[in-house]
Amino acid sequence: MSEITLKDVALAAGVHPSTVSRALDRAQAWQVNVRTRQRVIDTARDLGYQPDVLASSLRRGRTDTMGLIVADLGNPYIAPVVRGIENALEGRGLVAMIAETQDDLARTQRVFDHLMRRRVDAIITTATRAGDRTIVDRVSQRVPVVLAVRPLDTAGLATITNDDLRGGQLAAQHLADLGHRRVAQLVGPLDVQTFGERADGFVTTATVEGVTVLPFEATATTPTMAEGQRLMRALLQRHPNRPTAVFAHNDLMALGALAVLREEHLSCPADISLIGYNDMPGAAFIDPPLTTIRLPGYELGRIAADVAVAMIERSDDSPPRLSLPPSLVVRGSTAPPT
Amino acid sequence: MSEITLKDVALAAGVHPSTVSRALDRAQAWQVNVRTRQRVIDTARDLGYQPDVLASSLRRGRTDTMGLIVADLGNPYIAPVVRGIENALEGRGLVAMIAETQDDLARTQRVFDHLMRRRVDAIITTATRAGDRTIVDRVSQRVPVVLAVRPLDTAGLATITNDDLRGGQLAAQHLADLGHRRVAQLVGPLDVQTFGERADGFVTTATVEGVTVLPFEATATTPTMAEGQRLMRALLQRHPNRPTAVFAHNDLMALGALAVLREEHLSCPADISLIGYNDMPGAAFIDPPLTTIRLPGYELGRIAADVAVAMIERSDDSPPRLSLPPSLVVRGSTAPPT
Repeated sequence: MSEITLKDVALAAGVHPSTVSRALDRAQAWQVNVRTRQRVIDTARDLGYQPDVLASSLRRGRTDTMGLIVADLGNPYIAPVVRGIENALEGRGLVAMIAETQDDLARTQRVFDHLMRRRVDAIITTATRAGDRTIVDRVSQRVPVVLAVRPLDTAGLATITNDDLRGGQLAAQHLADLGHRRVAQLVGPLDVQTFGERADGFVTTATVEGVTVLPFEATATTPTMAEGQRLMRALLQRHPNRPTAVFAHNDLMALGALAVLREEHLSCPADISLIGYNDMPGAAFIDPPLTTIRLPGYELGRIAADVAVAMIERSDDSPPRLSLPPSLVVRGSTAPPT
Repeated sequence: MSEITLKDVALAAGVHPSTVSRALDRAQAWQVNVRTRQRVIDTARDLGYQPDVLASSLRRGRTDTMGLIVADLGNPYIAPVVRGIENALEGRGLVAMIAETQDDLARTQRVFDHLMRRRVDAIITTATRAGDRTIVDRVSQRVPVVLAVRPLDTAGLATITNDDLRGGQLAAQHLADLGHRRVAQLVGPLDVQTFGERADGFVTTATVEGVTVLPFEATATTPTMAEGQRLMRALLQRHPNRPTAVFAHNDLMALGALAVLREEHLSCPADISLIGYNDMPGAAFIDPPLTTIRLPGYELGRIAADVAVAMIERSDDSPPRLSLPPSLVVRGSTAPPT
């Protein structure tokens, strides 16, 4: 006797094969009408059908879940990165489960814990800070981990990031080309490697160009608008002889700086030029439209997902390190000094 | 590194595996000597043992996971809602696992499927459209479901939403008070109930105030900037005798409309006043600063999470329906007609 197939059951029960498949899968059975399900089960039993779907998914040892850790969903830059990841996973049958650290160490620990307990096939994290290194190293011994956006100074982890050193250089070069000679930075949290690189690139090129960079006395605890406001206020108080241009380490911090300039009745770019970082969605609609460094967020997300999937399938490959080139986008918030 | 098992912990602690199992299960820990229990816990921690929570949660019937379904992480309004949910869950030991539908029906089905397969204690969805009703009804028979932001015309589901009828009324009243007599709407997807209510409230109050609302011939497929652009272009083409004010059904669509006005060298608010909806983060920084309807996103998120947790604990209560009041925020994008 030839083997009874799912199609035979469907034919005999008078339903579509996909209905049989759902009715016999405990995880999906709720999608099927109760009476239909019973009919399918009875028919399958009568015909002696042996489904092996559940068994094979158990053998496979997969959850079809990609853990995706983000720092702050309030940062508009992250949405295209997530979209790129989701769309790359789409055809591979994986779903991204997203958890937010709020850029907080204790929460980061909880989120990793939770993902590991509930099991995931791999983790992409866009949220790493220096303090996460121990937990990331430990997790990466159990499942593939891809660092996206934010690298970690750890050997052997797959990393898809932006060339932030180059980004900082582009920002300084733009301000130097406009004729600025005395500038400042609003510096992001330096336990996130991206911000250290932005600062280094900026200072290196400024120095080569003979531009003075005011030393910073504080850094942001998180790269948010509120912290941009705090740092901009401190900068203006410390330097009554204002710099003519400011490099904010991301667009949200630039927004915070703009709020302070408005409060102080200072004009951007007439009194102070401002350059951001990320080219977050909406940056062109800000008043004034924000000059910034563009990062390819969607593309970065796609690549990170492709790498993570490849690591699930072939864990023996040595993990790649990729760095995508940023570009300068000139808009209305920068101008020659007056 | 191979995975640390219960047997490894038992060996290292010098006890029987069943003792480890009991010592680490709060419900059974009383069966184990206090000092032995402490030794097991210390050993488990030192070895980095991750108890199989999937198995133990099956016994307990809990996963400590809140499924959180969002439509579009690119909509800045959603970040505070998510933050409110996460922070309300914080002290209760639950973690929100977020999945994005991209406002797409097939993806919505996949996301619900995935959450049900992987098991969650409850689901909060901010993403429902009319087409999701069958799946939402079915899921809600298995786990508590809370509709947040977007309601569904379904009896018996817990719903925490905004009073969008009132929001639409506030928008029309503001334009009428400024003296506008001929206005239009950029209408969101009408299979999302919130947008139908915004439209109804707007037309009702406009009619009472003797303001003409141009009929709309198209609606957005998704409430995004791209769709705002498309609808604004169509509006200008259809009505060479332009309306003096436009109500965009959310702030992202208003951004899209602004982009079209710039292309057409029309000034906002001098040529056309524009009012948005949501008061998304950043709305005050747009050029011109956006007049809009403010929704209490963070508070809504907190309440939705509290309700979902209460439903997990006492499933017999009748599910609440709450509607939060919106408010008008007047900024620079609206002015009297010239």
